[in-house]
Amino acid sequence: MNPQADAPRLPLPPGLADLKGKPVAAIDTPALVIDLDAMQRNLARMAEFARKHSVRLRPHAKMHKSAALARLQMQAGAVGVCVQKTAEAEAMATGGVTDIYISNEVIDRAKLRRVAALAGQLNAAGGRLAIAVDSMEGISRLAAAMNENDGSSQSVSPRVSGEPSLLANLASVDKKPARIDVFIEIDVGQGRCGLPPGPAAVTLARAIEGHAGLRFAGLQAYHGRAQHLRSVEERREAIARAADEVQRTRALIEAAGITVPLVTGAGTGTFALETASGSWGELQAGSYLFMDADYMGNAHDPAQPAFEHALFVKSQVISVNAAHAVCDAGHKSHAIDSGLPRVHSLPGQPSLTYANGGDEHGILHPAASGGTLPALGDTVWLIPGHCDPTVNLHEHLIGVRGGLEHGTVERIIRVDARGALT
Amino acid sequence: MNPQADAPRLPLPPGLADLKGKPVAAIDTPALVIDLDAMQRNLARMAEFARKHSVRLRPHAKMHKSAALARLQMQAGAVGVCVQKTAEAEAMATGGVTDIYISNEVIDRAKLRRVAALAGQLNAAGGRLAIAVDSMEGISRLAAAMNENDGSSQSVSPRVSGEPSLLANLASVDKKPARIDVFIEIDVGQGRCGLPPGPAAVTLARAIEGHAGLRFAGLQAYHGRAQHLRSVEERREAIARAADEVQRTRALIEAAGITVPLVTGAGTGTFALETASGSWGELQAGSYLFMDADYMGNAHDPAQPAFEHALFVKSQVISVNAAHAVCDAGHKSHAIDSGLPRVHSLPGQPSLTYANGGDEHGILHPAASGGTLPALGDTVWLIPGHCDPTVNLHEHLIGVRGGLEHGTVERIIRVDARGALT
Repeated sequence: MNPQADAPRLPLPPGLADLKGKPVAAIDTPALVIDLDAMQRNLARMAEFARKHSVRLRPHAKMHKSAALARLQMQAGAVGVCVQKTAEAEAMATGGVTDIYISNEVIDRAKLRRVAALAGQLNAAGGRLAIAVDSMEGISRLAAAMNENDGSSQSVSPRVSGEPSLLANLASVDKKPARIDVFIEIDVGQGRCGLPPGPAAVTLARAIEGHAGLRFAGLQAYHGRAQHLRSVEERREAIARAADEVQRTRALIEAAGITVPLVTGAGTGTFALETASGSWGELQAGSYLFMDADYMGNAHDPAQPAFEHALFVKSQVISVNAAHAVCDAGHKSHAIDSGLPRVHSLPGQPSLTYANGGDEHGILHPAASGGTLPALGDTVWLIPGHCDPTVNLHEHLIGVRGGLEHGTVERIIRVDARGALT
Repeated sequence: MNPQADAPRLPLPPGLADLKGKPVAAIDTPALVIDLDAMQRNLARMAEFARKHSVRLRPHAKMHKSAALARLQMQAGAVGVCVQKTAEAEAMATGGVTDIYISNEVIDRAKLRRVAALAGQLNAAGGRLAIAVDSMEGISRLAAAMNENDGSSQSVSPRVSGEPSLLANLASVDKKPARIDVFIEIDVGQGRCGLPPGPAAVTLARAIEGHAGLRFAGLQAYHGRAQHLRSVEERREAIARAADEVQRTRALIEAAGITVPLVTGAGTGTFALETASGSWGELQAGSYLFMDADYMGNAHDPAQPAFEHALFVKSQVISVNAAHAVCDAGHKSHAIDSGLPRVHSLPGQPSLTYANGGDEHGILHPAASGGTLPALGDTVWLIPGHCDPTVNLHEHLIGVRGGLEHGTVERIIRVDARGALT
């Protein structure tokens, strides 16, 4: 079993539990802070988009890693969540999410036993688990794990004194073999996992159909590289090509007499394009909830709702000299894979740029010549370059209501799947 | 109080506790693995260097964030550890380390109350706490917190029915005011925190001497930028300039009649140079214990011991196509601020290069044209670009004895200060 999912959940540490109801000023730095008002506007805008366009929304929980936020998204209409890792799926299930899609390949046999066990648990709770595959080997290993799980579940049915008990009989009558939904991943431009679009997918679809515990659920087609193409035109061209590949592959599978129930994919940079193409039935966008500096760098597509920054690092100035100020947030507080954070100046605060100061520090300069520096002890708000790996650095998100300037801490949101790597 | 330090320590999760004594193959991926044999050779080499050159070694625990490894370093001769954060200091103290230096500025008043409380606790245990300052404001805030802590400690002495008890009397007789060692940070080329070298340090030294709870302990002079200058000559020039600044500042303080007990600094890239200069009495190198791809990219200085890679990410191939293979470790498994990981090929494994595949994936290509790719399910070992922020992504380090190929899991090392940001 997964260590993270096995670990007992701790109560909130006293320092954090005491924060509720306190002003923003009471939040120790550095800390990851959610502007709950902005987050809820983002939540509502995305839910409205999905409703209006009759497309399913399955947000990627690899972004927030929080079962509480996953439940919030489902209350707003999402059908479930995606995750990338088995351990993330386990953390979501532990947190009460019962419709989970591991939109990634799992090959390790021990890990596939965990996948099969989780499928059984979610089925028993009236929910479902789905997973992606891109190889015959992946399908046979998954099928073997599902079979083994059904077998091993039966072998632990309670028996008394060597005789079959009524309970054991009932258990075997009630027990349905667990089932898992399987998506075939095709590479529509990401250049990572996935089969080349075309006939190879037909062979895999047939193989999936040949296993009792597996259900062919459709195609996984996510164009990650298209998400941060800066112009709308570039993104439109990339998704148009991807849509052609999806349609071509879908037609080949259907020509072989196999229904393709769903095509799932899309991210925060492009989901209006996938939706407009008619080729996708489910959107996996996740970053829309928090946004980040990288996504905000995209030219806005008027077909998409405009999302706001809801995720901030609160930091403090700990050193000032003639040339610059230094804050207490470095890349142990925020991920820099997609660029350095931007400084978010509140009214009355100086405009600043952030330069890399290493693991624990950020170097602040005035944004314009002649601009002023903050003073020792001042608060500096940062907008992370990339939300997903930033959240993964923190145990908790501190939810603030009423804005960063005068707001109050309303809730502490646990990052349930932090470090859930396996 | 700090949330991390307050949180009760969990027992090892069952999945990890069960790993002890098992072969490397049983380690789920991705995972951070320590080659304990290589680590202990690094430990011994550094300890021997410090002994031979009669210089104090105070390794930076911001790197491993583990109290168990800090204790191991002290058993090998280190005088204590450095940390960058108050919360790291608290985690080290909780783990039994009693000589701790926060080699960084702390300005927040609530955080300084934690610093003062920790100083009192360590003093009571026969240990000590030190901290860096670079401003008059920092010194007065620290002094205020130390005074306040002495006052508040006395007010909680046990009393019975309003009358002073024997215990309370004993407590006040025994109680000495807590003391903290204070280093003045000067900027010798890092370009981050610290005063400019020169007369400003004299003013600060006088101010420190003027507060009963503070003891002027010397100069903090760390040239971070010099650590990764690739040629020995560049590093030598940078540290020669830094040594001049240290000597000049030291002479000014001593000319004012104030003794400079110690100059502390140096990292894994340059420590032999600081040592040879005679200007530093204490080395703060931390990365030598694990090493990383970035440090191994330096031209080797024959005056320094040769350290080995001891830190690896174990990953697995989850997808293979005509062009590349994909492993299950992306930048949620290893930090990429100092470059992507290098693939560490064991005997018989193909030579590979690692390209960025995002948060959860790495893209593997043959290192030479005509080279082979690994197969689905194969293990791929990675050497992280930068050890410090990589360790901070993980809850545990898995210690292996007998090599990565045929070794056995000997111990699980908790990353006590993971996420200890404040």
